[in-house]
Amino acid sequence: MKLKELSALLGLSQTTISRALNGYPEVNEDTRQRVLKAAEETGYKPNKAAQRLATGKAGSIGLIMPTAPEHSSDMHFAEFQAGLADAAINRDFHFVIMPAHRENEEQAIRWLVGSSSVDGYYLAYMKAADPRIALAKSLRLPFVVHGRSIGLDEDYPYLDVDNEGAFFNATQLLLQLGHRRIALLNGPAELDFAARRKLGLEKALAQAGAALDPLHVRHSFMGDEQGYRGMREILSGPDRPTAVLCASTVLALGAVRAMNEAGLKLGRDMSLIAHDDELPLLKPENFLTPLTTTRSSLRAAGKRIGERLIAMINRDSPEPPMQELWKAELVLRASTGPAPRDR
Amino acid sequence: MKLKELSALLGLSQTTISRALNGYPEVNEDTRQRVLKAAEETGYKPNKAAQRLATGKAGSIGLIMPTAPEHSSDMHFAEFQAGLADAAINRDFHFVIMPAHRENEEQAIRWLVGSSSVDGYYLAYMKAADPRIALAKSLRLPFVVHGRSIGLDEDYPYLDVDNEGAFFNATQLLLQLGHRRIALLNGPAELDFAARRKLGLEKALAQAGAALDPLHVRHSFMGDEQGYRGMREILSGPDRPTAVLCASTVLALGAVRAMNEAGLKLGRDMSLIAHDDELPLLKPENFLTPLTTTRSSLRAAGKRIGERLIAMINRDSPEPPMQELWKAELVLRASTGPAPRDR
Repeated sequence: MKLKELSALLGLSQTTISRALNGYPEVNEDTRQRVLKAAEETGYKPNKAAQRLATGKAGSIGLIMPTAPEHSSDMHFAEFQAGLADAAINRDFHFVIMPAHRENEEQAIRWLVGSSSVDGYYLAYMKAADPRIALAKSLRLPFVVHGRSIGLDEDYPYLDVDNEGAFFNATQLLLQLGHRRIALLNGPAELDFAARRKLGLEKALAQAGAALDPLHVRHSFMGDEQGYRGMREILSGPDRPTAVLCASTVLALGAVRAMNEAGLKLGRDMSLIAHDDELPLLKPENFLTPLTTTRSSLRAAGKRIGERLIAMINRDSPEPPMQELWKAELVLRASTGPAPRDR
Repeated sequence: MKLKELSALLGLSQTTISRALNGYPEVNEDTRQRVLKAAEETGYKPNKAAQRLATGKAGSIGLIMPTAPEHSSDMHFAEFQAGLADAAINRDFHFVIMPAHRENEEQAIRWLVGSSSVDGYYLAYMKAADPRIALAKSLRLPFVVHGRSIGLDEDYPYLDVDNEGAFFNATQLLLQLGHRRIALLNGPAELDFAARRKLGLEKALAQAGAALDPLHVRHSFMGDEQGYRGMREILSGPDRPTAVLCASTVLALGAVRAMNEAGLKLGRDMSLIAHDDELPLLKPENFLTPLTTTRSSLRAAGKRIGERLIAMINRDSPEPPMQELWKAELVLRASTGPAPRDR
């Protein structure tokens, strides 16, 4: 039984039937009951595309939600999702979210695409030479990469922040203030953005004839506990650094706590620059000593990726891959100051 | 063209065809190309249920994501979602998320259910006499309410925290410590949980012959800015309170900042009890003065609701509505102390 036949049977327009089945208020209750009864008796199953047509609903964006029982919920993921929603809501797009363990992400993509429940999707948490990019290219559904993947040709559509440039600039500022021993509280080592931020730090140090001490580097999930533990270990180790770069304001929250405990005054005894994703909960200007940051809005990135995906989906034709690299802004506040003299 | 006919046409099993269309690695590339070509030529559209059968994927949970351009991303929503993912991941469930403005939530539910893209869903951010409950009951798809709705019979399936009991207990602790003027930084006034927390405070005060001063109450989105502004206003107003209840540790973060600025020492000049959803980013024990809290894990609630939904969906039959009311735990830390003498 097709919508057309049901329409003929009931003497109602296809739009009315779709709306009745979708419970839209424009259809009165008697008609709705009549349609429901007929649909049940004839075994009519509404066709998704027809429904969308009738209701004006457009489509869906797929995303993989990395998860694990021992994992914390991730503010960064939530903020990006809020940006996607900003883009989706006015175009009547919705999301199909597949929770997946890291090792099952390729399978999750295959499932998302194969289920025909999404019209496009994005990839995030990119690794070096990430195999998901070749997979996505082979699947012929619009996709955008959030981030990039070191070691692969950049012939895929992406939106990334210039992570290397951001931490290069941040390091130059610290070098100009006289710092030479700079620590790094970074995101997970296998992620592309973390690798590029480390590279920015290393390149700037190398230009100044200095080097990164491996003992002053921590890679972890970007929670405040991790920032606290990493900073505490580094502070109690040899050759204490005079400054630290944090890959997130969340890591900085913990790092500042460790400094307070050690009796160090931020901006005087120790300088800190954090990357600021503009998480609404953790504004760098709200820290007791406001934080100097490299700033780039994660929500704006989510919104932009949503808009690009929707444009690709609606045009319904392959686009030349568009590459966008956003510059992070260096914002000076009180957490940076001249390097203290060696004791 | 049905899967069966395509199977006969190609001389391949239905499982192989489904797997080929889903891009599963078990099927070799030649076969996959053959299937894709035949599917294209014959106009075959894979049936979702058949796909699920072939891939072992089970089903989907729908949720509404409240959003607005001016809104912040919500940690509480993210943490609940992480719990849902804990439940979903082992059962191969995924989510269909509909971003919606508050005023369009009923329409969003109708759409979710009508699209046949979800097998069950949950409702959250409940209001008094919330019309979504009657709507959900009429739609005959499994649902669970997170929270409750004051003013309606409790004949629907829900999971709620005993919000009234939590703030009643918290207030009794403050009363025993000698506090009589207690402020309240609460969630949005229209939400059920906020109404119940306020009720708990009012009832405990009334029993002690005291009353809540309307000038000492703030209702807002639960961000740290809101907590800061609310506390600052209350501190600069008349009849300064000696204690405050915060509906979230996020509000408390801002409230503590306002106290610091006013030169008040937490736990001595001013007592504070916050509701702790166990947000991994904001642990009450990590505040400079650790916070006394009423504690109930939002992630555990998300997981439990996910499990209940999946059980309801898999049994594929209506359940007697199950009601669960979780007690929050009162956890004493350093932010509560005896009321200071009146100056």
